[in-house]
This record gives sequence, structure tokens and C-alpha cells, in this order.
Amino acid sequence: MNQGKIEDAYVTLAYGNGGRYMRELIARIFTRHLGNPQLDIRADASILPMPPGDVMVTTDGFTVQPLEFPGGDIGSLAVHGTVNDLAVSGATPLYLTLNAFIEEGLEFDVLDRLIASMARAARDCGVKVAAGDTKVLRRGEGGGLYLATTGVGIRRPGLRLGLSRIENGDMVLVSGAVGDHGTAVLLAREDFGLKGDLQSDAGSVLPLTQALLNLPGLRFMRDPTRGGLVTVMHEIAQTTALTVRLDETAIPVHPPVRGVCDILGYDPLYLACEGRVVAVLSPDDARHALAHWRALPSGEDAAIIGRLDGPGGQVVLQTEIGGERLLEELEDDPLPRIC
Amino acid sequence: MNQGKIEDAYVTLAYGNGGRYMRELIARIFTRHLGNPQLDIRADASILPMPPGDVMVTTDGFTVQPLEFPGGDIGSLAVHGTVNDLAVSGATPLYLTLNAFIEEGLEFDVLDRLIASMARAARDCGVKVAAGDTKVLRRGEGGGLYLATTGVGIRRPGLRLGLSRIENGDMVLVSGAVGDHGTAVLLAREDFGLKGDLQSDAGSVLPLTQALLNLPGLRFMRDPTRGGLVTVMHEIAQTTALTVRLDETAIPVHPPVRGVCDILGYDPLYLACEGRVVAVLSPDDARHALAHWRALPSGEDAAIIGRLDGPGGQVVLQTEIGGERLLEELEDDPLPRIC
Repeated sequence: MNQGKIEDAYVTLAYGNGGRYMRELIARIFTRHLGNPQLDIRADASILPMPPGDVMVTTDGFTVQPLEFPGGDIGSLAVHGTVNDLAVSGATPLYLTLNAFIEEGLEFDVLDRLIASMARAARDCGVKVAAGDTKVLRRGEGGGLYLATTGVGIRRPGLRLGLSRIENGDMVLVSGAVGDHGTAVLLAREDFGLKGDLQSDAGSVLPLTQALLNLPGLRFMRDPTRGGLVTVMHEIAQTTALTVRLDETAIPVHPPVRGVCDILGYDPLYLACEGRVVAVLSPDDARHALAHWRALPSGEDAAIIGRLDGPGGQVVLQTEIGGERLLEELEDDPLPRIC
Repeated sequence: MNQGKIEDAYVTLAYGNGGRYMRELIARIFTRHLGNPQLDIRADASILPMPPGDVMVTTDGFTVQPLEFPGGDIGSLAVHGTVNDLAVSGATPLYLTLNAFIEEGLEFDVLDRLIASMARAARDCGVKVAAGDTKVLRRGEGGGLYLATTGVGIRRPGLRLGLSRIENGDMVLVSGAVGDHGTAVLLAREDFGLKGDLQSDAGSVLPLTQALLNLPGLRFMRDPTRGGLVTVMHEIAQTTALTVRLDETAIPVHPPVRGVCDILGYDPLYLACEGRVVAVLSPDDARHALAHWRALPSGEDAAIIGRLDGPGGQVVLQTEIGGERLLEELEDDPLPRIC
């Protein structure tokens, strides 16, 4: 990637969407200045070289609107998002730090509910909040509440997971239906005038990731948040220079999600999940992984959805009617403020 | 402190100011829900029980306006603020995580400068950015840029520092003049119509803190940021139930800072510093500490400014003209958005 300056003069929303523009922003500003052997922008968590064992750390910011949505809220999301980033790295999350940017005018009752929800999520995931900070923002500058969480976890020494382990012929699995979170948040906004009983999939993926850690053919796991399933597939395709071939009929999508997306013109394959895992495994272990996942309550819709299929670096969808189409990388924001 | 609900229905700016309202907000919402043995809201950094050695973690959010000011900017501030919180805990900072909330419309040139400044500060402090995340906020919702940083450091096993170690008769030191940062940021705002060549004191305090770590009489260190010197003194007075007696003539304040504060009606003792340390030591070691600090470039204005003076839990200022007055705890925000 060109390391020169960004051509645009101003940041636009497209630079926060998880796709190419954001990679550019990160590569050309953040990585260029901050790059060092510990800064791997493609990993969900980084190893802190502090023996014994592998100390893992990750961080995430949360700006979802509305603050509360069917199936979750920004408080639990800020825990699950960071716990999940550690989990897909193969780590056991232990601690969180929390930054809260609170807008003047936010109701205390709402804040109270959100932080209570956060505490419940932390207890359920077995993590402790080890440090925190709050700032109050002037009215009109805050969106109610922004959160940032950093997670610290421990990973079994010797466990190697990552994009670099992926091989041609490997299989791609997803732990459940995609697009629930993005669609639920969309419907929770009054401006769309649609009603539905869709629930976000937001939750901890720790049981799912831990179920696979003993499989030697496990190569890579990732939670498809901003930019959805396709964005993870592009990351795999670009890093490995292999083509990812997905089978449209195999990808689980809940019918109401498909219905809403059809009405509004969104593609669920690009919508954020907050409680799903994408995993890449050797063909043999892919079958074992599928069995492990389907035995878990959060994995009963798990499916093998595609495979690494020779050189090319593309993401190809085999469609229901037998054709195929290229899935482009996300360029603009499908849904602002969903994580 | 009463653990019931906050009486106000809405968050106001006063709840972010480092004084009583903020303690209330933290105690009655954050600590009530998130409290656990690792969550010590009075420590600048927390021990993560991960042997060997004491792993320390801290986090801070940054919303300063303007983003660039004489002597610093939000990028370097976000490094120094978190490095300093680890330093005053007696730790050696090793890693940072970074969250950036970027407002749509921020110029890339500005962002570039700020992140470059952050990288320089990190190199100078010997810390590495180990993980990061960015979000883009809609125009009008962001203040240009908010940052949150989490720091991880290592502390020598057996080193005990904290408010609980403070004893009657101990001395209070400050490493340099107070109020420079708050005043410099104030003047950098066009809305005050004042010009001056005041520089913020923003910087790393690591050399200052490390100079004292071998003194057995070292009880406690803190960097007086939001709420300034008096807020730290109140924390000491309230925790120990001892009276802190400060000597007005001994407290270093740069004359231009005093001048600006006189004009605008601020008290420099309540204004944020971003590169100073307050330390409490036994009387013998206070003299050694003073000598150590004065030998450092960032400590040449260091002074013994007061002492712990019997029961009472008050903060008392002996004035230049021989009288004394109570220094009240900060209730409202003297200067929004200075850290």
C-alpha cells in the first residue's frame, strides 16, 4: 500500500467504516507514525512480551446509536466487543479498562442502566474492570455516550493463530446467522419507520472460541463486526493472495433480516455481527469444529460457508441460482454507528 | 459516601470536573456496578495480579480544546497523561493502547500532526502502542478528536505507595510551578481575547518519579491534573482524616500565570498541570527528594509546600500576609476541556 499522504483534505464518514478507506487512514497515519513490532493492525489482539505466558491486549471504542437496542446496549457491547477480540485471538480475557465520554444532558437513569448492563456482561464473561476514566462532553458534542474498552488476557503458550497460517484448501466456518446486530440496530432507530422483533446477536463468543482451541487444524478466528462477513473475507483474501469462495446457500441469514435488507437495500453479508465468529480450519478439523459449535447454544446455526480456492485474492460468491459474483470490498458506510 | 441514587436527573458539566460531583458520579454509578477488588478509583493505576512482578494498568480519555496549544497537543497529552499515571504509581510504563474518536471534517494535516506528536512522545517515554481502534463521529458530535489511552507497566515487587501510607508530620512536595497547563490552554482559546507566551507544562514525569523510588520515606505520588493541586490535597485530607497545611509563599506559580489568573478570576491552585508531580514523604526523605528533584531539568522549581498537620481532614492555606484560609473542594468546572 502506498505510504504517502491521503489525498482527501478532510476526514469523512467513509474513513470509519471498516473498509478500504479506513485501512488507508490507519495505514497512512496511525501505522506510519506509531508502527513498531508490537503494533499489528491486522490482529484483534497483540502479544505483550511479558513472560510467563502470552499476555494479550486489545482495545475498542463504542459509539452505537441508539444506546439501547433489542438484544443489547452500548454497555454490554463495550464488554463483549473487547472480550470477543481477545477470545478470537485464542486468549482468556481477564481484565478490562474503561473510558466513558458522557454527553452533558444524558439521563442518569439511562447511564445507570448502561453501566449496570456493562457490569453484568463483565461478570458473565469472567472479566474485571481494572481501571477507568470518565469525561463529560458539552451538550451537542457527544451522541449521549461513547465508550472505549481495553482488554487484557492470557493465551496458552505455543498457540499459534493468525492470517499467516491459512492455507489453500482450508474451510471457512461461521458460528451463526449474520447481520442480526446491524439489522436490529437499524430497526431500533425511529428514522426508518420500520418495526420488527429482531434481536441483536450481541454477546460473548468465548464459549465458541474455546471450543476450538484444541484443534490443531485451527488457523484463524475473527468476529465479523464493522463491515461484516465480507470485510473479514477480504482481509483473508488480501493477506493470503488466495481466493475465498463462499456458497450463498450455506451462509445462515435469518429470514426477517433478509426481508428488512431487501426493503432497505442492504446486504446482510456486509452488516455487523457482535456475537458471531468466523473461523478458518483445515478440511478435517473443519468438520470437528462444526460439530463442537453445533453442540453449543450459541452455535446451533453454525455452518461451513466456503473455502480457500487457489490464487487470486478475490472474494467470490457462488449464488443460489448457480452463478457467481465478486463481492467487492466495502467502500462506504452501510450503517453508521452500529458498534 | 451515600450509595443511593444521584439527585439530579441529568448529567451536567460539573460531573466531569474532578471535584465532588465527579466523585459522586463515579461512586454512585461506576463503582457501585463495577466495584471489585481490582477497581480502586483512588489509585492512578491498578495492579493486575499476573506474576511475576506487579503488572500495572491505567487509562485516560482526552478531550482538550484547542487540539493544539503552546507546549503540547492532544496527541502528546494522551501519551504523557497515561505514562504519568503509571509513573506516579511507581511503575515503568511499557505499552499503550489507543482509542481515537475522530470527528468528520477534521483536517488530515491536523490529524497527521497530532498522531506524529503522539508517536514522538511515546518514543521519548519508551512506550509502545500495542493496540488501537478508531471511530469516526458525525460532524458536530466530536470536538475534532477525542482520545483514550490505556497504559500497562511493571512495578518493582515490594514497592508500596499509596494514600494509606501517609502519616501525620509528613511533608508535601511539588516538582514545579502549578497552573501552567490550565492557563496555557485557556489563552490558546480565541474566546478569551488574551495573548501570552505561556507554555503548558505537559510532559513526562517519569524522570521525576524514578528519582524518588529508592527513598524508603516515599509514601505517595500523584500528578495534579483535573482539579489541580487542591484536588489532590483534598484527596489526601479526606482519606487520611488529617489536615493538609500549605504555605502559600512556598508554592511555585509563574508570575504570568498569576497575572492571567488575577485578570480572569481563576485560582492557579485549582488549575490542571500535565507535567508536575505532588509527592508526600517523611520529613527526612522530603529533603533528599527535594535535592533529587532540583538536580533534574524538570524539577528545578521543586519545593516543599506543606505538611500533614494533625487531625481535621481540611486543606488550609497559610497566606502570605500571615493569615490562613480553608481551600474548599472544587465544586464546579474552572476550565472545561483542558485534559
